[in-house]
Amino acid sequence: MKSVLVLVDAIGNRRRMSAELTSLESDQPRVAVLGLGAMGQALAGALLSAGHPTTVWNRSADKATMLTARGAPLAETASAAIADSDVAIVCLLDDAAVRAVLEPLGSELRGTTIVNVTNGLPAHARAQEGWMRARGVDYVHGGIMAVPPTIGQLGAFILCSGATDVFRRVEPALAAFGRSIHVGEDAGLASLYDMALLGGMYGMFAGAQQAIAMVASGDGEIDPFMSDLLLPWMEQMLPFVPMNVNARGEVAPEFNPQMQAVALENMIEATRAQGLSDGLIGHLHVCLDLMRNAAPVA
Amino acid sequence: MKSVLVLVDAIGNRRRMSAELTSLESDQPRVAVLGLGAMGQALAGALLSAGHPTTVWNRSADKATMLTARGAPLAETASAAIADSDVAIVCLLDDAAVRAVLEPLGSELRGTTIVNVTNGLPAHARAQEGWMRARGVDYVHGGIMAVPPTIGQLGAFILCSGATDVFRRVEPALAAFGRSIHVGEDAGLASLYDMALLGGMYGMFAGAQQAIAMVASGDGEIDPFMSDLLLPWMEQMLPFVPMNVNARGEVAPEFNPQMQAVALENMIEATRAQGLSDGLIGHLHVCLDLMRNAAPVA
Repeated sequence: MKSVLVLVDAIGNRRRMSAELTSLESDQPRVAVLGLGAMGQALAGALLSAGHPTTVWNRSADKATMLTARGAPLAETASAAIADSDVAIVCLLDDAAVRAVLEPLGSELRGTTIVNVTNGLPAHARAQEGWMRARGVDYVHGGIMAVPPTIGQLGAFILCSGATDVFRRVEPALAAFGRSIHVGEDAGLASLYDMALLGGMYGMFAGAQQAIAMVASGDGEIDPFMSDLLLPWMEQMLPFVPMNVNARGEVAPEFNPQMQAVALENMIEATRAQGLSDGLIGHLHVCLDLMRNAAPVA
Repeated sequence: MKSVLVLVDAIGNRRRMSAELTSLESDQPRVAVLGLGAMGQALAGALLSAGHPTTVWNRSADKATMLTARGAPLAETASAAIADSDVAIVCLLDDAAVRAVLEPLGSELRGTTIVNVTNGLPAHARAQEGWMRARGVDYVHGGIMAVPPTIGQLGAFILCSGATDVFRRVEPALAAFGRSIHVGEDAGLASLYDMALLGGMYGMFAGAQQAIAMVASGDGEIDPFMSDLLLPWMEQMLPFVPMNVNARGEVAPEFNPQMQAVALENMIEATRAQGLSDGLIGHLHVCLDLMRNAAPVA
């Protein structure tokens, strides 16, 4: 929510000063954002809207245009951006890019606080934390559970792992993006949970891709199928996920796993009969295994 | 919605007669339900609640107890149930079971109307329709897009294919279950759309199964992960399915397919690094292919 200050000046006009213009005197934590891809730009924009003094840095400066126009200083170096912040948020392409930017800085980083939200493996996050700890950096690893357009919106959340006291300290800055959730002290856990959640999302994508390929193979119209049938159906079925899927490999009796296995065999056969690639039915095989091995709920 | 008739008798007591008790004089279509598994029982229950005179039949009569207690006559044979109905709904285990029940009846079926909602391949439905047409039966094939507990509830719908005039005639009976949608005159289309939609649902299941296996491998607690993170996240991401998945193999530029391919490779590597089976990542491979081959949206 952008707070808006309304002043009434001497000649009766009203002048709106947005939060980012008043942020020079803000007592909000100063935040740096390193990396201005689509997500980094969304993060910096949300920080500005929330009134944080926000410094940005990117390897190629042209990505900063919209943010500097909103009053964000563009740092000349990553080092300067971090030095000028209470919390530095690192949002780069991958772990190799993070190392390329931060490793040369070495002991310059001492005493800083870094939240790394770059997508990577749990092992990457644990290695980063070890490297940071050895250099006196307070480190939290984060996983942003949103897409750039939903940053700061209802539903967006940030998974964090690492030292609890550091998490508590960075939480107010992260609040600009959504609810932040500390999943454990092990720095790798945010990535593990992040990947697990993305796995759920990609299951939806895989299912939808095979669904529309089936309909297309029958000369059906895809757009109305997607909007009027597929998405409402998936929304209707989402609450039934826990009755069909759990860590114990059990399926609720009223969701008869034997019957579901027969339906899945039919679906695999029908997909092939429509001339579609086996590359589309990976999710059906996952579920067929699941239903064949399912035990009744105890 | 069960309509309730309230009578005030001579001594001032009120007697409620539920719709199913008054159905002997109902002008609603008379419906037969053949097959009383969990879904058949739900269908017959919804018909009774909607005030249809409803005859039931099942190979083993004990499944009918709850329905006969609500006033549904139990037919002794499938033939008698169909003969006594304006519309007969067939809901059996599979296509073989349908043939085992109906084929012996042969020309007895002439002049009847059958809606077969048994799960099967498009080819099964087309073969059934040909057989029925040759015997003077009006036939519609249906796919019930609900689970037994959601029959008759908001969101439930019934896909139908076959002759449009027959569909129009059976639509009032099907209204007890949900909205009915005619997807085409080709009798196989309801099954094709049904399987496509189930493919979407099984994508969600596959994604959720891998997600909870990842979290379990990191000693995370599954139930709160499922309810507080996974399901809300999948709900948040559902509207983004069309930007990532379509029949043209395009991905919206702000959902950067190259970046997604890197994330998917990381996820496959992380799943293996957690010691989990490749049998869990079929959906990730479907999506990796999709992202690698994606063209930008024109």
